[in-house]
Amino acid sequence: MSIHLAFHSLEWENNSQPKYLQLYEHIRQAILNGQLKSGEQLPSSRALARQLGVSRTTAMQAFEHLAAEGYLSGHTGAGTFVSQLPPDQLSLPGVQAQEAPVIQKRPLLSRRGAVISSLSGSKLVNRQNIKPFRPGVPALWDFPFTQWFRLMSRQSKSLGFEAFGYGDAAGYLPLRRAIVQYLRKSRGVSCEPEQIIITNGIQQALGLACQLLLNPGDSAWIEDPGYNGAREAMNLMEIQPRPVPLDQEGISVEAAMEVAPDARLAYVTPSHQYPTGVVMSLSRRLELLEWAARQEGWVLEDDYDSEYRFNGKPLAALQGIDRNNRVIYLGTFSKVLFPAMRLGYMVVPPALAEAFQQAKRYTDRGNSILEQATLAAFLEEGQLERHLRRMRLLYQERQEALVYWSGKLLGEMLRVNPSDTGLHAVGWLQPDRDDCEVAERLWQQAIIASPLSGYTRQYRQAPGLVMGYAPYREELIRETLERMAGVLGRGI
Amino acid sequence: MSIHLAFHSLEWENNSQPKYLQLYEHIRQAILNGQLKSGEQLPSSRALARQLGVSRTTAMQAFEHLAAEGYLSGHTGAGTFVSQLPPDQLSLPGVQAQEAPVIQKRPLLSRRGAVISSLSGSKLVNRQNIKPFRPGVPALWDFPFTQWFRLMSRQSKSLGFEAFGYGDAAGYLPLRRAIVQYLRKSRGVSCEPEQIIITNGIQQALGLACQLLLNPGDSAWIEDPGYNGAREAMNLMEIQPRPVPLDQEGISVEAAMEVAPDARLAYVTPSHQYPTGVVMSLSRRLELLEWAARQEGWVLEDDYDSEYRFNGKPLAALQGIDRNNRVIYLGTFSKVLFPAMRLGYMVVPPALAEAFQQAKRYTDRGNSILEQATLAAFLEEGQLERHLRRMRLLYQERQEALVYWSGKLLGEMLRVNPSDTGLHAVGWLQPDRDDCEVAERLWQQAIIASPLSGYTRQYRQAPGLVMGYAPYREELIRETLERMAGVLGRGI
Repeated sequence: MSIHLAFHSLEWENNSQPKYLQLYEHIRQAILNGQLKSGEQLPSSRALARQLGVSRTTAMQAFEHLAAEGYLSGHTGAGTFVSQLPPDQLSLPGVQAQEAPVIQKRPLLSRRGAVISSLSGSKLVNRQNIKPFRPGVPALWDFPFTQWFRLMSRQSKSLGFEAFGYGDAAGYLPLRRAIVQYLRKSRGVSCEPEQIIITNGIQQALGLACQLLLNPGDSAWIEDPGYNGAREAMNLMEIQPRPVPLDQEGISVEAAMEVAPDARLAYVTPSHQYPTGVVMSLSRRLELLEWAARQEGWVLEDDYDSEYRFNGKPLAALQGIDRNNRVIYLGTFSKVLFPAMRLGYMVVPPALAEAFQQAKRYTDRGNSILEQATLAAFLEEGQLERHLRRMRLLYQERQEALVYWSGKLLGEMLRVNPSDTGLHAVGWLQPDRDDCEVAERLWQQAIIASPLSGYTRQYRQAPGLVMGYAPYREELIRETLERMAGVLGRGI
Repeated sequence: MSIHLAFHSLEWENNSQPKYLQLYEHIRQAILNGQLKSGEQLPSSRALARQLGVSRTTAMQAFEHLAAEGYLSGHTGAGTFVSQLPPDQLSLPGVQAQEAPVIQKRPLLSRRGAVISSLSGSKLVNRQNIKPFRPGVPALWDFPFTQWFRLMSRQSKSLGFEAFGYGDAAGYLPLRRAIVQYLRKSRGVSCEPEQIIITNGIQQALGLACQLLLNPGDSAWIEDPGYNGAREAMNLMEIQPRPVPLDQEGISVEAAMEVAPDARLAYVTPSHQYPTGVVMSLSRRLELLEWAARQEGWVLEDDYDSEYRFNGKPLAALQGIDRNNRVIYLGTFSKVLFPAMRLGYMVVPPALAEAFQQAKRYTDRGNSILEQATLAAFLEEGQLERHLRRMRLLYQERQEALVYWSGKLLGEMLRVNPSDTGLHAVGWLQPDRDDCEVAERLWQQAIIASPLSGYTRQYRQAPGLVMGYAPYREELIRETLERMAGVLGRGI
């Protein structure tokens, strides 16, 4: 193909790209797709400039850049040539496609990649969706953002430049110290700062625990119904989640021993079972810890919302009564402050601290310093406690509104039992209802209600809806329940 | 044991804990360690209060809390009793320790956990260590933090409350759009926002790619010498890193085919090989892409610092000339802005986009919104380009100072070749030197110099030191080189 033809199709684009880059790109493509062959001589920059109606500098810059990248050579004196590049490499895409159509012999994804890809989790969490009764979201509108950003601004000035380099991957030390104080005082968790690993929320902590403590193929007990995120984290790490039924004392250790006697780990939410709200009894707690000690297994204690206990102090964590160092305690600030902060933490037994620090380092080298420093100050100055006190009152009021108005407006159609803790409650439907169908019909009326069976793998409970109340004003709760009564009253 | 004895050892602590909590904790411990037995009756709250010299309210609060947690029961009228709890569960820790000493039959860590724990990476990155010639750190002192925090403050106000809920795990859409523009313009990378996954820096991106694309036990080519972080990420995901030698054109594909013909992935730094600085030739690039297409394997292109090319436009990325969708492109803002931000990104082929989005979701549900939004504005408003222009000049000056003063002060003892790109250069020692020993002796004089052999597994190069220059003023560079001359001049 003649040089002239190669430049024939060049059309200048009227965009922000300088002309020399457009020319560079045009020649590069011509070489890559074989229009310009190895060894072919190009016109001089002067001739090319004249031909294309551009300045000579433009042509020279394009040539220089192509030479720097290895497309052209011999630029001085003797003329400019397309570099000698093995033709089979150069024209690879085109030639292969003709001679031997590429047949995908291997799957694109690894085995674990295929598992991840097949998980059916919510594909996109739309933030427009914070409306009744989407669960799992705190009262964002009542968070003291002004104070938060003031603290952040202060910390940004006082941290010093070096803090913005690479820090300790396991977390900013003052934050880990503040969490130790907070946990000791309010959760009965006893630990040292070295045992704290700051994570991107509970999800990452779950993954690290599965990765470091269990081998691929090992089994783990999960509550059923239970938190889907835990099952997904296990799948990601090739652990077999084995659903275990609940009773009024929490996860049934007896049933679990039948279901999966060889399990190496139990994932539990003892303070406030997600989503049913059952509090694990002391006797059950001791039974679980005994199992872990005997089995040399592990208990993952997810304490995602126990800060919001309305009557009295929150129940002490499992971690505090375990004497065999078999509990990994997981906490988060997503529910206490706001989810977009993406800061959680795990408390690991002393013998595991170094391995988890190491794993966090090789996983992502740690979290952003500024939000860690802001959070540390928020804890140290008692602002967290003030915020929690305010939110406890607010959430209690909102839960009461949910219980009261659902009783009044929906009666037997939706029975919401009051609960002592948390950001959500279960509304029980009449036994002959299909909660998925109800949720679907509510969804059509722009009401979000998560069907309890969506949290269930095997041990079906009565039909119910998991209803978040924390971020919704009382009027909105009442108004939404009115609309729900309309939908549910129409029968199935 | 008598009740009185159980309370005998109670000593009030003069700390922030209210007395009722101290009493609660004391009784709880007495029950857990068997001092108070199941079914045993406690004194009335009135009697106990008198005995201990506290108010009756204090005693009642402690009792109520213990009852709520299941330690006590029958509080109304008939008296308060220690709950019926199976003794073998309750006294488990003590009894087991006496009757059958706990023998750890299983290892604490999983197989992969043990691998992670055995990795010999730097245990603690001390931020005091930002001094010559620690590599990998940009000029933190010259970053426009004032403008950055002003942008952050603006974004914090304009984002709206809902943005602080759960967002898109793959990243804040305006940021992904801004990165697409940036890559198209300055790196020759063509992609759509859906192909971008925002990660916690390159380290997490490396892990995700290994996890999703390779099975445990698969092999991957790595450059030798090369970036240790990549090897660590592979170990974490149970991939076998296979060191491949370099030549003047970059990684030797020919040698790689000998070393590990069945490898499924190649990790490379084509724009500026880490740490030697070699730029991969066009011919080698095409050879590597051809291999990936033939093998149905993957190229991980780590483009960690190509923004800092001093002469002309940075070389176009491998991703832009690949026509078989076999390149995963990795970028980071750690070197461009500051490491503590912990934001990087990966560009994956369209067919893999959904799987990677899903994996990021189940790994940690995404990154902090505020820093993503700030970064998006920083890119959109052209501040990134302004900053890069300033830093390019600054780094070029500093590299020139390093080259000039090392020539002048150290002569043949340390030969630093000028490089077109980056934040560091290699200083070559005389052939009979041991670079580890030299680095050790410099370390004793508070000079950080990373020995090249620390980046090497198998293919030993001439002895050298990897020397960062970006964050250090010219006077500091000169003064440090003077001290180095003193150390090296003394012979081995």
